[in-house]
Amino acid sequence: MSSSVALSGCFENCMLASSAVFRRQLFLIRSLGGNCCRVHMDRMQEAEGAGAATLEADAEGIIRKITPVMDPRRYKGQAGKLAVIGGCREYTGAPYFAAISALKIGADLSHVFCTKDAATVIKSYSPELIVHPVLEESYGVRDDEKASVFGKVVGEVKKWMERFDCLVVGPGLGRDTFLLDCVTGIIRHAREANIPIVIDGDGLFLVANNLDLVKGYSLAALTPNINEYKLLVKKVLDCEVNDQEASEQLKLLARGIGDVTIFRKGKLDLISDGETVNKVSISGSPRRCGGQGDILSGSVAVFSSWSRQHLSSTKEATEKSLSNPMVLGCIAASALIRKSAALAFASKKRATLTTDIIECLGRSLEDICPTE
Amino acid sequence: MSSSVALSGCFENCMLASSAVFRRQLFLIRSLGGNCCRVHMDRMQEAEGAGAATLEADAEGIIRKITPVMDPRRYKGQAGKLAVIGGCREYTGAPYFAAISALKIGADLSHVFCTKDAATVIKSYSPELIVHPVLEESYGVRDDEKASVFGKVVGEVKKWMERFDCLVVGPGLGRDTFLLDCVTGIIRHAREANIPIVIDGDGLFLVANNLDLVKGYSLAALTPNINEYKLLVKKVLDCEVNDQEASEQLKLLARGIGDVTIFRKGKLDLISDGETVNKVSISGSPRRCGGQGDILSGSVAVFSSWSRQHLSSTKEATEKSLSNPMVLGCIAASALIRKSAALAFASKKRATLTTDIIECLGRSLEDICPTE
Repeated sequence: MSSSVALSGCFENCMLASSAVFRRQLFLIRSLGGNCCRVHMDRMQEAEGAGAATLEADAEGIIRKITPVMDPRRYKGQAGKLAVIGGCREYTGAPYFAAISALKIGADLSHVFCTKDAATVIKSYSPELIVHPVLEESYGVRDDEKASVFGKVVGEVKKWMERFDCLVVGPGLGRDTFLLDCVTGIIRHAREANIPIVIDGDGLFLVANNLDLVKGYSLAALTPNINEYKLLVKKVLDCEVNDQEASEQLKLLARGIGDVTIFRKGKLDLISDGETVNKVSISGSPRRCGGQGDILSGSVAVFSSWSRQHLSSTKEATEKSLSNPMVLGCIAASALIRKSAALAFASKKRATLTTDIIECLGRSLEDICPTE
Repeated sequence: MSSSVALSGCFENCMLASSAVFRRQLFLIRSLGGNCCRVHMDRMQEAEGAGAATLEADAEGIIRKITPVMDPRRYKGQAGKLAVIGGCREYTGAPYFAAISALKIGADLSHVFCTKDAATVIKSYSPELIVHPVLEESYGVRDDEKASVFGKVVGEVKKWMERFDCLVVGPGLGRDTFLLDCVTGIIRHAREANIPIVIDGDGLFLVANNLDLVKGYSLAALTPNINEYKLLVKKVLDCEVNDQEASEQLKLLARGIGDVTIFRKGKLDLISDGETVNKVSISGSPRRCGGQGDILSGSVAVFSSWSRQHLSSTKEATEKSLSNPMVLGCIAASALIRKSAALAFASKKRATLTTDIIECLGRSLEDICPTE
C-alpha cells in the first residue's frame, strides 16, 4: 500500500486545510513522494492566500545571483549607500532597525534623516549610522515659517540625494502634517533623480492619500502590512481585501497604482509589479514582535540596489518581471528575513525580539550565499 | 531507627522556623518520607505568612494553559499590546524594566508613556519600545496652564487607550502632584474603556490616597511590596500587617478595597481577589536588587492579557477565583519571575542584576511551556 493512499483518507475534511496537523501531514506525504493530494494542496494554497497560479520564487537563487562578490579592489560605497527617511518624537526604533539592517546585510553606508528629538536617540543606538537631524514637526514650526522651513528641510535631504542607491521612506515617520508635507517634497525629488524608493509604515499612509507620488514610478516598492494593505486596496480598488483571490487582487492593485512593485506581507509573502506574482513561503518565525517590517524595508533597499547593479552589468535574458530590480529586491529580502527570523526563533523562542533577528541577518545570508 | 525519628529532635526550637538550615533539614525529611514534623511544618508555614488553609497554586499548569500557541497565521498585536505609565525626571529604569519584560515574555508591542526628560533615556535603552514623551511634572507647567495641559496629557494617552490589552501604572512614576493628577485621569479613562490595569510602585501611593480609583474594578491588580502593603493595610483596614494571619488579612484587604486582585510579594507570594488566596512558593532568588518589582508588574500585564484571551475562548468550568484573569496573571507572573530569578542567580550570584533576570525570562518560560 503506497503511503499516499494510506494517508489520503486524512483529507476528507477540507476544514483542516489551514491547520498545523494538515500541514505536517502534507509535509510527510511530500517527503514520501506522494502526490494524490494535488486537489487538497491547491485548496490549501488558496486558503493560504496565494492562488493556484502563483509561482514560488527561487528566492535563494536570486540572492546568490545579485549579492556582489567580496572583492578587495572595491571601495567604500560600492556595496550600497542607503538612506532612511523616518524618526520623529514618538518613534526612533523603526528607522534604526531599517538602517542597521541594511548595514548588517552588507551595505557600506546607512543614513537616517529624522527630527532633532529622534536624532540624539538614534545616534545613541549605534555609532555605525549617519544620522541627520533635519526633519521638523508642526509643534516646532510657526505657520509663517512653514514655507521657508519646508524649503530648508527638502534642501538638506536633496543635497545628499544623488549619493544614495535607495531611499526607505516611512519607518517611524509619524503622521504630523507638516513633516509629511516635507516628505512629499523629498519623494518628488528622489523620483526626479531616479533614486529607487521603498515605502513602508507611515510612508504608505502618505502615499495612500496621494497616489500620484508613486504612480508610474517603476523604481518604487511598497511594503504594506495587513492594515496598510487594507487601506491601499480600499483607496485604489475601492473594495475589501479578498484572501481567496489574493494574487489576482495584488496584481490589480499594482496595476491600479501604476507600475509600482508591491510586497504583501503575510503567512506567505506575495510580490507583484502588476505583471506576475511571486510567492515566498519558506519557513519564518511565528513571533510577531513589532519592528520586523522595518528590517524588511531596509533589506528590500539593499537587495534592490544590488539587483539594479547586477542587472546593469549583465545581458542575461530573463522574463520581464525578473528584470525588475524592485521585484528581485523584494523576493530576496523576503527569503532572508524569513530565514533570519527562523534562526532567531530557534534560539530565543517567545523572547525573540527584532534585534535578535537583525543579529541573524549575516549568518543567514552567509548560509545562502557563502563569501567563499 | 527511622530517619524521621532520628531527626525530630532538631526541631524543638521554633526560632529555627525560617532559617536555611531548618529548610534544608525539612527537605531532607521530605525526601526520606518522614512525616513526624507536621506541627513544625505548619508553624513554619504560618511564620512564612501563608496560613495553613492557603493553597499552593498550580502556577506552571496555569502558565501552560494561558500562554498562546505560536501560530504563523497570527499577526502583530495578537500576542499582546501593553503600555506602561511611568518614567519621570528621576526614574527611567523602572518603566523600562516593566516594558521590556513584557516583550521578553512574548508580547508583541510595548509602549511607555512618560515625561519628556525620561523619554530620551528610555528610548536609548532599547529601540524595541515605543516611548511617548507626554507626561508633565509641576516644574514645567504654570498654574494657569494646568487645566489645559491636564486635558492634553490625558487626551494623548486616551487616543491610544483602546489599542492596549493592559496598562501598568506606576513604575518610576514619582510623586509629583500634577503628574499624579494626570495619571488619575488616565486610570479613570482606562477603567471606562474596560482596560485591565496593573498598579505598582508610586501608582499604589496614588491609589492608597484615592481608593475609589480602583474600588469595584475587577480588572485591577495591585502588586505592593512590603512598605506599599503596610500603607494599604493601614489605609483600608486601619491596622498593622499581621504576618500570622497573612492570608486572611490579604483577603480582607482585597474585599475592603472592593473586587480588586492583590499580589502580596514576599518570601512566598500571596494572591487574592477577596474570594480565595493562592500561594506561590517555588524557589526564587535571595538577591534583592532594585527593579524586580518592575519585571513583575510587566509580567502580570502580559499574563493577565493572555488569561483574558484564554478565558474568553474557552468554556472550561473552573472555580470562580481561577476564572479571574488578574488572579491567573498574578500567579503565572509570580512563578515565572521566581524561576527566572533563580536561574539568573545560579549563574551570577551576588552580582545578579535585574537585567540578568530579564534575560532569563525567555528560557524560564520555555522550560515551563515549550513552544512545540
